[in-house]
Amino acid sequence: MYSLEQLLEICEKKIQEFKFDREPRLLYEPIEYTLAAGGKRLRPVALLMAANMFTDDLEKAFPAAMAVEVFHNFTLLHDDIMDKADYRRSRPTVHVKWNENIAILSGDAMLICAYRLLNQSPEARLPQLLKTFNEFAIGVCEGQQYDINFENAENVSMQEYIRMITMKTSVLIAGALKMGALIGNASSEICESLYRFGIDLGIAFQIQDDLLDTYGDSKSFGKTIGGDIMVGKKTFLFISTLEKASKEDAERLKKLMSGNLPIAKKLPEVCAIYDKYGIQEYTQQAINDYFDKAMSILDSLPLEKERKAPLHELSMMLLKRNK
Amino acid sequence: MYSLEQLLEICEKKIQEFKFDREPRLLYEPIEYTLAAGGKRLRPVALLMAANMFTDDLEKAFPAAMAVEVFHNFTLLHDDIMDKADYRRSRPTVHVKWNENIAILSGDAMLICAYRLLNQSPEARLPQLLKTFNEFAIGVCEGQQYDINFENAENVSMQEYIRMITMKTSVLIAGALKMGALIGNASSEICESLYRFGIDLGIAFQIQDDLLDTYGDSKSFGKTIGGDIMVGKKTFLFISTLEKASKEDAERLKKLMSGNLPIAKKLPEVCAIYDKYGIQEYTQQAINDYFDKAMSILDSLPLEKERKAPLHELSMMLLKRNK
Repeated sequence: MYSLEQLLEICEKKIQEFKFDREPRLLYEPIEYTLAAGGKRLRPVALLMAANMFTDDLEKAFPAAMAVEVFHNFTLLHDDIMDKADYRRSRPTVHVKWNENIAILSGDAMLICAYRLLNQSPEARLPQLLKTFNEFAIGVCEGQQYDINFENAENVSMQEYIRMITMKTSVLIAGALKMGALIGNASSEICESLYRFGIDLGIAFQIQDDLLDTYGDSKSFGKTIGGDIMVGKKTFLFISTLEKASKEDAERLKKLMSGNLPIAKKLPEVCAIYDKYGIQEYTQQAINDYFDKAMSILDSLPLEKERKAPLHELSMMLLKRNK
Repeated sequence: MYSLEQLLEICEKKIQEFKFDREPRLLYEPIEYTLAAGGKRLRPVALLMAANMFTDDLEKAFPAAMAVEVFHNFTLLHDDIMDKADYRRSRPTVHVKWNENIAILSGDAMLICAYRLLNQSPEARLPQLLKTFNEFAIGVCEGQQYDINFENAENVSMQEYIRMITMKTSVLIAGALKMGALIGNASSEICESLYRFGIDLGIAFQIQDDLLDTYGDSKSFGKTIGGDIMVGKKTFLFISTLEKASKEDAERLKKLMSGNLPIAKKLPEVCAIYDKYGIQEYTQQAINDYFDKAMSILDSLPLEKERKAPLHELSMMLLKRNK
């Protein structure tokens, strides 16, 4: 079985080899630029790990793994246009380096390339792979639309928030795992279990992302602390505080979040309200709960422990567990 | 066999039935709006006709036909953003009616919906259908990029121009025909012949579009006459004139085209140069040549005349022939 390190290396190598020997260059250079930018390559690794639980022949899973990574990067490319983001991974975004039209068109081409890669998968599995891929692909669009809707929404319930992060982040991870299992010819029950495992893991991962954005260590987090608070994003922390807080504190929090205080003032004032209601611990508990649910599903899969070990290791790494 | 009228009616009906019973509405309403806007539905009709040459069971071809129409409309949606077009079919474009982010995201969702529809095709044909679809899909992106490149290009050769319209317009028609034949289980030779027929027909159609934009009758053309000249578009007429004209006339034409004269002056001055070199007749001859090539391929298909009649009728209609 391949280890996490081996699969990360394989995925990175395969992505870097992605050169389009095609014209026009203005269509393909932004695609190469986007893929070369880096990234943790978690989704293709997850797919390969899921396949590897059932088969040692990973060659047949590589195209689908690449399809998932290309799809993921396509969503980032278009999201960056919509968010008017100037940088990604410390480099100018495509619409900044080239222009918006090129970003739209190259993104479209990337999505089509993902489907081309998918079509290199084992033929017998293609209808199911395509179905799974389409389901998470449309899910990501729906999640992004919900996320956009939330910016102008007066209130966002916890249920709506969880739905949004499920669609925007989790279904892709879950779908990648399911696709890997499909390629490994796993039973449909196991494919569905892996999907649900991925959903819970993805939700835990995204809530952790919310937590680290406010309470993390900027060196290990890789991003500036407080970004979400700066832009008034309705995160897990914000929504759960509104659920718990007194009417006055809730109003104060909303006012702070939508206000324009400089970060040096806004961050501690918001955190003071969060701390009053024990939100950091509450959020960590939610992360643990979803993580435990995920692990419980993984543990209950009828496979030998060794076959599940890499996926276990990946989960621990994602959720920053050291044991 | 279904007639052209019957197929146009079926396609229109099926497209109008396209309602997405899904949330979030801001993702799906623009898709329904785009599809309901109308359009000649030529591409799905072409697919169904091609299928009908080989099978009377068109039900199995409907999803692919819808996929092609949804794809075509996706390209229009994103093209309108890139072209900053305010209207399409006399209605505000999606980015005007809603906003640009919604137009980008709904477009992405439309493309995914096209693949979902495609996945409802006969399983045994799926790998080939997906391959054909992906090929024309990426071709349209490449064609659009070439078209964008031309705006700032000093010179565009006839060869480059033909390549651009082949990618931007023809490969979709050709691919639709090929997909129809694939679903009808036609031999691979016949599939390839129909593809080449579609390429030639599509080129004829696009050159005709160029001709009518300058020399057409605005009532039957459906658009304002002279639009291409107004924006200085490098059409077949422009490029062939530069090939034939004296150095002075070529310079004068380029200067006129990139200049800002009002349409009442610009149009007759440009047409005077076109007329000096017999460009209207030359263009009509090119249209006829491509059309004849297409008809020759259709005639040589080893099928009874009756089975080829609807496609023949469609071609005559597209190229405005009355016999």
